[in-house]
Amino acid sequence: MLVWPELHLFADGVPDRAREARLRAAAQPLDGPLIAGLAAISRRLGIWLIPGSVCERGPEGALFNTSVVLSPDGDLTASYRKIFPWRPTEPYTPGDRLCVFDIEGVGRLGLCICFDSWFPEISRNLAWLGAETIINPVKTTTPDRPQEMVIARANAITQQVNFLTVNVAGPVGVGVSALFGPQGERISGINDDRPGSFEAVLSSDRVHRTRREGTAGVTRPWDFFRPGDSPVDLPAYRGTIDPASWNRI
Amino acid sequence: MLVWPELHLFADGVPDRAREARLRAAAQPLDGPLIAGLAAISRRLGIWLIPGSVCERGPEGALFNTSVVLSPDGDLTASYRKIFPWRPTEPYTPGDRLCVFDIEGVGRLGLCICFDSWFPEISRNLAWLGAETIINPVKTTTPDRPQEMVIARANAITQQVNFLTVNVAGPVGVGVSALFGPQGERISGINDDRPGSFEAVLSSDRVHRTRREGTAGVTRPWDFFRPGDSPVDLPAYRGTIDPASWNRI
Repeated sequence: MLVWPELHLFADGVPDRAREARLRAAAQPLDGPLIAGLAAISRRLGIWLIPGSVCERGPEGALFNTSVVLSPDGDLTASYRKIFPWRPTEPYTPGDRLCVFDIEGVGRLGLCICFDSWFPEISRNLAWLGAETIINPVKTTTPDRPQEMVIARANAITQQVNFLTVNVAGPVGVGVSALFGPQGERISGINDDRPGSFEAVLSSDRVHRTRREGTAGVTRPWDFFRPGDSPVDLPAYRGTIDPASWNRI
Repeated sequence: MLVWPELHLFADGVPDRAREARLRAAAQPLDGPLIAGLAAISRRLGIWLIPGSVCERGPEGALFNTSVVLSPDGDLTASYRKIFPWRPTEPYTPGDRLCVFDIEGVGRLGLCICFDSWFPEISRNLAWLGAETIINPVKTTTPDRPQEMVIARANAITQQVNFLTVNVAGPVGVGVSALFGPQGERISGINDDRPGSFEAVLSSDRVHRTRREGTAGVTRPWDFFRPGDSPVDLPAYRGTIDPASWNRI
């Protein structure tokens, strides 16, 4: 699978009215020629392709920051509209739907784009929906990338998933990309803003072994609840953690 | 305020049947002589005291791992039963209620004990309930303290709160304690397992400045939603993020 950073094909530039007009002019629906062209590439190369994210024109003209997943057959296997655009800079309408998808022989994957990672609910719910790997295309140009990397690693640890965060290189972005394994171990990556690429194996075995044997051989958050436990009320979501639907071992 | 590590007054030892019998014999309700004695200390010294956590005997004989907050007047201002005991080692019944409390001149604080920190829902909901500082007494004796410190820092960053994590020193615990500020900055702490103490100012100004001006001067997750935004469905909690009750600036 080839993964590019957020908005890799859409240099959205500084936030002024001219930018929004340009974005509106360039945005396409997902059945438009841009995605068809990307699908032709994934089919020609016979690879899974996540070309960062694109500026999607929605049915009523709204703009979304949308990641797409193209299969080796050129199918649009999944698409995800960023739920937390980085406001006020980004002009996109927030999406309202989580996205997981399956790749035979690899497992279940989930998508979250850049600032989404700052909301641990997103990673939690992707993992709860079965994601063993979370793909996080990023376009961070600001000095908070160190904080974002702490969060990326913590998402990997708390969810016991592979967490791949891929940022834009310099001079536009501040770079720093990595795959973290389910114990927060850095498997590979790039530590600065130089353009480059890196390879990594997205092993779901690694995820299941960690969940079964525990982080550092001891800690098993996905095997917490026992019969008779009470639900945990979470007022911020008007929701609960339901013991009956939690465990993932 | 003086904060001690989890179970500082209850060396609960190795998990066997003898331990459970000893804990049952030693456990007291919160209106028993142990808490009265601790309240006498906080009153005598004129300080806020969080003596780690104690083994509480509940009304029907259940054992809880409970943190208490004692005021300079010797009042039991708050108590919190650990929601996520570290299973299977800990014999305690999980609590089912979040806990925040106010200290005049300091602000609102929330409690979470050790393994609770691995569940980002807890920190999120404490912050949503208004906590500017989260106090996290810990008794970690296992090699996953490095992961726990990543999580502690990420909780500080994602919630934009002060996060104080205080672990048991050697030879019982693996140590490593710190106060992280709302941008994940380490304000003070102890980096190894040697016994010791450290001081830190729990500033809620620091929290509000970060939320207002942004992490690294730019990122403001507590000022996300705008009128007309859709709720975000979170199936793991059968809940939603409701735009109308989110912003905290």
